[in-house]
Amino acid sequence: MGEVVRIQRVKGTRDLLPEDMIKRRYVFERIREVFEVYGFKEILTPTFEYTKLFELRSGEEVVEQLYAFEDKGGRNLSLRPDLTSSVARLFVNAFQTAPKPIKWYYITNMFRYEEPQSGRLREFWQAGVELIGSSNIEADAEVIALLIESYLSTGLKEFTVNVGDRILLDEFAKMIGVKDDIGLMRLIDKKDKMERGEFVKALQEFGLNEEDINKVFTLIELKGKPDDVLPKARELFTSEIAKEELKKIEELFELLKAYGIKDYALIDFGIARGFDYYTSIVFEAIADNDLGIGSIGGGGRYDNLIEVFGGKPTPATGFAIGIERLIPILESKELLPEFKVGSDVFVAYIGNELEIKKKAIEVTQTLRKANIKAEYDIQGRKLGKALDYANSIEVKVAIILGRRDLSEGKVTIRDMKSGEQKQVAIESIVEEVKKLL
Amino acid sequence: MGEVVRIQRVKGTRDLLPEDMIKRRYVFERIREVFEVYGFKEILTPTFEYTKLFELRSGEEVVEQLYAFEDKGGRNLSLRPDLTSSVARLFVNAFQTAPKPIKWYYITNMFRYEEPQSGRLREFWQAGVELIGSSNIEADAEVIALLIESYLSTGLKEFTVNVGDRILLDEFAKMIGVKDDIGLMRLIDKKDKMERGEFVKALQEFGLNEEDINKVFTLIELKGKPDDVLPKARELFTSEIAKEELKKIEELFELLKAYGIKDYALIDFGIARGFDYYTSIVFEAIADNDLGIGSIGGGGRYDNLIEVFGGKPTPATGFAIGIERLIPILESKELLPEFKVGSDVFVAYIGNELEIKKKAIEVTQTLRKANIKAEYDIQGRKLGKALDYANSIEVKVAIILGRRDLSEGKVTIRDMKSGEQKQVAIESIVEEVKKLL
Repeated sequence: MGEVVRIQRVKGTRDLLPEDMIKRRYVFERIREVFEVYGFKEILTPTFEYTKLFELRSGEEVVEQLYAFEDKGGRNLSLRPDLTSSVARLFVNAFQTAPKPIKWYYITNMFRYEEPQSGRLREFWQAGVELIGSSNIEADAEVIALLIESYLSTGLKEFTVNVGDRILLDEFAKMIGVKDDIGLMRLIDKKDKMERGEFVKALQEFGLNEEDINKVFTLIELKGKPDDVLPKARELFTSEIAKEELKKIEELFELLKAYGIKDYALIDFGIARGFDYYTSIVFEAIADNDLGIGSIGGGGRYDNLIEVFGGKPTPATGFAIGIERLIPILESKELLPEFKVGSDVFVAYIGNELEIKKKAIEVTQTLRKANIKAEYDIQGRKLGKALDYANSIEVKVAIILGRRDLSEGKVTIRDMKSGEQKQVAIESIVEEVKKLL
Repeated sequence: MGEVVRIQRVKGTRDLLPEDMIKRRYVFERIREVFEVYGFKEILTPTFEYTKLFELRSGEEVVEQLYAFEDKGGRNLSLRPDLTSSVARLFVNAFQTAPKPIKWYYITNMFRYEEPQSGRLREFWQAGVELIGSSNIEADAEVIALLIESYLSTGLKEFTVNVGDRILLDEFAKMIGVKDDIGLMRLIDKKDKMERGEFVKALQEFGLNEEDINKVFTLIELKGKPDDVLPKARELFTSEIAKEELKKIEELFELLKAYGIKDYALIDFGIARGFDYYTSIVFEAIADNDLGIGSIGGGGRYDNLIEVFGGKPTPATGFAIGIERLIPILESKELLPEFKVGSDVFVAYIGNELEIKKKAIEVTQTLRKANIKAEYDIQGRKLGKALDYANSIEVKVAIILGRRDLSEGKVTIRDMKSGEQKQVAIESIVEEVKKLL
C-alpha cells in the first residue's frame, strides 16, 4: 500500500459531531428568538474581507491574529476576526441613507490565530447584534438588556453583565496626568490576569507614583450595584465630562429597571475591553464556572468606526456572544435539555428479494411522510444483525417485515426499550409507531 | 478630512441582507427537515484544512481553484472547496469502527476561486449528505430519493435528477480503445457547453475516428426514462462489467419507484461530473430556468476516497445542493412564501421624561414576552417622526403612549394599514395587538 497518509484537522479547529450540532442549534435558536423579538434582523457578510478593512479599525492585537493571505488575483485578504468591521463596511457601502436605527444580528464563525485554550479556538462562533444610528443611552440599554435576555433564553442564570465606560477611563487618565491612555487601558484590562504585586509593578513601570496607583485601585474597585458604586464614582471623578457620563450611566440603569432584568447588570469601571474602537459604554458578561472560562460575551459603543471606514459619522453599539464559551458552561451546569440524535424508527426485513426491499422502503416512506425520523436497512443484513444495528443507533422502534406477515397485510413492531413486539396492520403503522415514541 | 478610504467587499462574495437571510433560512429549514426525517445527522468540519487533504483527492480543477495560504505557524492550509474531503477525513480520524452506515448531513459555506457568474460565487453555500459504509445500490437509491425530496420540500417541481455511471464510461473508453479515460470523461462532461461541430472537432483532436465519434454520440444520447434507455444501453455495452452495472441501474430505478418519486429520476449516461473521485453512480439535478443556471446539485459514489485518506477501504456516496443556484430559481418561479422581515409593533411616546421612556420599555417588553416582535423609539423622536419611522420599517401596529392616556391606564393602538386607532386598557394590550397581526 505504500505510505499511508492520514491527515488530521488543523490545530485550534474542531469537528462538530451530531451531538454537538444539536446542542448548538438549540442554543442558536433560543438566542435567535430573542434577537428577533427585539426587532433585530439577520444579515451575513463574506467570510473574508480586504485585510485593509481590519487594519483600519482593529486593535493591534487583532491585526496580529489575522488569518491574512493573498488570493490568486493578488488581493490581500483576511478571514474575519469578528463581524463588526464587516457590518460597518456594509453600512457604509449601502445603508447610509436607510431609516435609523438599523438593527442587525448575525450568528456565524470568526477566525483568530491565538493560542488555543479552554473556550478559545482559532475558528469560533459568535451570535451578535449591531444597533447603528443612535447615540442615545436608550440604545445602550436596549443592547445590554438584549444581551442579558439572550443568556436567560439559554437557561443560564448565574451571570452578570458588567458595564464600564471608556470616557471615564479617558478622564481618569487625564486626571492622573497619563498621556498614553490606551496603554493605561490595556494595562487595566489585564489586571485580572495578574497578581496584585505584579499589577502594582506594571503600573510603576508604566510611570505611576504611589498616589496614582492608589487611584487606580480606587477605580478598579468601582464595581458592583449601581446604587453602591455611583456615589463613590462621583467622589473619584470631578470633571464635567465625567459627571455627565456618570449621569448617563445612572439613566442607563434606570432604563434597565424597566426591562425587568436589572439584577444581572452591574458596574465595573475597570473594564476597558481589548478593542481600540470602543468610544464610551463597554460591557462584558461573566458567568460563574469551574472551567476557567472568562468573558462569555461583551460589546460596547463604537461611535467613530463608521467614519473611519469612509462613512458619515454615525453612532453605533453592539455585542457578541462567544458560543464556544457559553455552551461548555451550559453543559457543565446541566442546563441543556437531553437531545435525541438521529432516527426514531428502523425498518428491517427478512429475505433479499427486490419486492421485500421495496416494501421496506414504502413503509419507511410512510413514516417519513408522517414526520417520523425513519430509516430502513440499506445493508440488507440478516434480522439479528439488523436489530443489533437498530440498537446501536438507539432507535425507539424497530419494524420487521416478513413475507408471511406481509401476505396478511401485517408487520411486526418492536419497542426497543421493553423488547415487546406485536403484529399490527400495515395501514395503522404510523399510529402504532407514534404510541411508542 | 484627508483621503476617504471606502472599502468594498471582495469580488465574488456577497452581503446577505435580512430579506436574503429569511429566504435562505426558509430553504435551509425545509431541506434540513427532509435530511433529518431520512435519519441523517448534522455535522460541521472546520472552514480550513491542510491543503494536502484536497490535493490528495480533488480533481485538478478544484486544486487550481483553492484558496490556499500559509498560516502564521507555517502550515499550508486551504479554505474548503467542498465538504466531502473533510467528512472523509473526519471518518478516517474517528469513525472507522462506528456502526455502518453513517448518515451525515451539513449546511455550510465553501470557497472556490472561479470566475463569478450567474449562480456562481467564490463563497457559496451547500446543503449536502454523505452516506458512508454501504456499497449497496440501496444506498445510491436512498441518496437520490433524498435529493429529489429535498428539492420538492422547497416547492420546486420542474426539475430532474439525471443518473450516469463512471463504470459505464470506463467500459465505453475501453470499448473504443481510449487509454486516457479521464480525459475522455472531461471532454464528454463539457459537451453541453459546446456546439455539435466544436464537440466533434474536440473528439477528433482527442484521437477518435468517425466510428468512435458516432459511438460517443450514441452514448450521450442514452438519456431519458430508464424503460426507454436501458434496452438501448444493453445494445451499446456488451462487456460483462457493463452488463452487471446496467443490472444495478435497473434495480436502482426499481427501488426509486418504491420511494414514490420516480418521475423525477432519469438516466443520462453522458454525465461524468468534474470530480475525479467518483467511482460508479453519479447524478446531477437540473431545473428548468431562464437564468442560465445549469446543475443545481449533484453527487455520486466515491468508494476509493477514504482509502486515499489512509482509512480502511470504505464505500460511500453523497450529494450537495447548491443554494445560490436553487434560490434564484425558486424566486424566479415565485415558489417562496412572502416573508415579513423585522418588527411587527412599534411603540412611540409623547414627551421626553425618563418615566415615559420606562413605560414605553415596559409595554414593549410585555409584547416581546408574548412573542411579538416589538421595538420602541430609542431615538426619542416627536410623534410624527416616530410614526414615519414606524411606517418606513413596515410594522403592522403602532402603539402611542401619552401622559394623559397613561394616567387613565390606557394607550393608543394604531393599525398602520388602515390608519384606524383606538384607546385600549394597558392590561389588554397583547390581546388587542394580536387582533391586528
